Amino acid sequence: MRIVLAPNAYKECLAAPAVTESMAEGILRVAPEAQVIQVPLADGGDGTVDALVSARKGKYAKIPVHDPLMRTVSAQYGLIDDEQTAVIEMAAASGLWRLKENEKNPLKTTTFGTGEMIRDALDRQVSTIIIGIGGSATTDAGIGVAAALGYRLLDVDGKEIEPAGKDMVRLAHIDDTSVHPRLKDTEVLVACDVKNTLLGPEGAAPVYGPQKGATPEMVVQLEKGLETVAAQLETYQGESISEMPGGGAAGGLGAGLVGFCNAQLRSGFDLIADYAHLDEALSGADLVITGEGKIDASTRFGKVPAGVGKRAKKYSVPVVALAGGLFGEISSLYEEGINALFSIVPGPLMLTEAISRARELIANTAEQVIRLWLLKN
Amino acid sequence: MRIVLAPNAYKECLAAPAVTESMAEGILRVAPEAQVIQVPLADGGDGTVDALVSARKGKYAKIPVHDPLMRTVSAQYGLIDDEQTAVIEMAAASGLWRLKENEKNPLKTTTFGTGEMIRDALDRQVSTIIIGIGGSATTDAGIGVAAALGYRLLDVDGKEIEPAGKDMVRLAHIDDTSVHPRLKDTEVLVACDVKNTLLGPEGAAPVYGPQKGATPEMVVQLEKGLETVAAQLETYQGESISEMPGGGAAGGLGAGLVGFCNAQLRSGFDLIADYAHLDEALSGADLVITGEGKIDASTRFGKVPAGVGKRAKKYSVPVVALAGGLFGEISSLYEEGINALFSIVPGPLMLTEAISRARELIANTAEQVIRLWLLKN
Repeated sequence: MRIVLAPNAYKECLAAPAVTESMAEGILRVAPEAQVIQVPLADGGDGTVDALVSARKGKYAKIPVHDPLMRTVSAQYGLIDDEQTAVIEMAAASGLWRLKENEKNPLKTTTFGTGEMIRDALDRQVSTIIIGIGGSATTDAGIGVAAALGYRLLDVDGKEIEPAGKDMVRLAHIDDTSVHPRLKDTEVLVACDVKNTLLGPEGAAPVYGPQKGATPEMVVQLEKGLETVAAQLETYQGESISEMPGGGAAGGLGAGLVGFCNAQLRSGFDLIADYAHLDEALSGADLVITGEGKIDASTRFGKVPAGVGKRAKKYSVPVVALAGGLFGEISSLYEEGINALFSIVPGPLMLTEAISRARELIANTAEQVIRLWLLKN
Repeated sequence: MRIVLAPNAYKECLAAPAVTESMAEGILRVAPEAQVIQVPLADGGDGTVDALVSARKGKYAKIPVHDPLMRTVSAQYGLIDDEQTAVIEMAAASGLWRLKENEKNPLKTTTFGTGEMIRDALDRQVSTIIIGIGGSATTDAGIGVAAALGYRLLDVDGKEIEPAGKDMVRLAHIDDTSVHPRLKDTEVLVACDVKNTLLGPEGAAPVYGPQKGATPEMVVQLEKGLETVAAQLETYQGESISEMPGGGAAGGLGAGLVGFCNAQLRSGFDLIADYAHLDEALSGADLVITGEGKIDASTRFGKVPAGVGKRAKKYSVPVVALAGGLFGEISSLYEEGINALFSIVPGPLMLTEAISRARELIANTAEQVIRLWLLKN
């Protein structure tokens, strides 16, 4: 009997590897002979590094980087595949969580720290870099990353600009003579589920700027800056990045990584699931248990449980989902390959109690699921 | 595919027939071809009449009776088996819920109204009367019932006493010349899970008197009264009722029904389950779903889910229990024949919300249980 555990993290509660451990504990109480395969997952957002390091038994690299306001902080990323692949969350260095409310200002913030993590990975001679770009504090079209990787970003007078939102508009020339020598030989894969383009009314500045602290005036200024970077990258690369779906993700970092690092934008779930070797685990499995903190009607759009359901369906493996909370109309998930859904909550209680008891509740519910599933019918 | 639904009521939330209806609704969403047999149950307490009337497609009789303080109220009891069997809850007439806090006083309260329901059933020529005796407001050893049935309860001067707690001590003679003529030919079965005796430190007065409003002085007075009734009944019947387990239930009504009505005390669950024809439903079933509002370590002691588990085990039918809340250590229930337990609660929420959404939540959880159970393993 082979049971695959493939949940997302329970957001603001439990990392995906802790979720799979809890599920395994409950299952082994009932079925100690079961082969339990833990494949903690992520959708490219928060928890991506933890999930892949755990699923692939990798390691962490912890290095000093600069935060969105260029203060020195410590951030970690993951190394898997015998350190051939780096897994980076941009938010580790450049996330909104690094800033106090009154520090949020996308004119001042930069992705420079994310570039430092990429540079550190290049120094280690990795062949692939996976980057999750959720939760950014920035709207700099990736010029911070570019600067950290050795690009010289020059104004009309040949002077280096400051690689933050406000200076995008000054960019007049991209000089790659000092760029990191490993960059062109390294595959860069970006986990990106946002479809917004870099520019225009659905672009990075008007849609995501305000939540990062941009006033309406700043949005206009940022839009001009993003246009400038797009034009310079088109000149530099010979191709436009301004119409690309996902280019507007993370304040234009999506487009910037394509332009400066020749990155490919991928669906977050598919990218992580591939690197976590989900399909290998599913092949020949008898049951999959997935899960997420919250499951609702939006879960079918790129969230981990729906992604697991779709893949398991290909292998005709049934899927049970365990959620912290099931909300609203969830029957659309049956079409996505999820066969049954349960909440881990054992009775009326407060969110804080559910969170503090999450390990126990996940273990107990997984146990009951296996108890029921093992009944002959 | 035959699925038996055999839950208790969800206390202070949903009657057992509404629980089975909700379960059926959820099941039929997934398995419209399933044969769903609804056997709403009870343990002899609150909900006994509703469960048996529903399970056996009986009817209700609604009559004027006297409440514990002899005020006229309306109460109903059930009639099943082509009106050959009456099902009475003593609390319908004589329950603590009939009194305001400042009215609670077991010297003044009486089971007279319960006797009126019995009398009405005798008038209808039933052959059996089932009485659930939970929730009483009284400590009268059943002299109220006796008076309503035509017993003349006399003091030393041959004057009739008042059939309430305070006058028990005056009882000097039991005269049955005017008792209801059908009483001796009618089987009286009492659903009683309390093991307390009528008298002594574990008796009706000291253990249950205080919750009915008895002060320590009243407890002493009531104990003397119960002793007096016990002595008179021994004289009258030729047998002692004072050592009988369960005699102390409902303020001595257990012992009183034995003494005055030749009743038999039975386990509540077994009595109700027999009359609900649970075993006939279990025989040949593929799955049983039981449930109760709250399931915890005490559930194994006479509660409905444990009783269903035990009986289903005899027929090798698996049992799943659905609770409003699962609390504490529930693994002892596996030995009682319950295979898996789930809460109906879909996420962190307040008790009031769980109660108001109970039908929907029970239906949804039953649906998920069947979805999982139907998976091949």
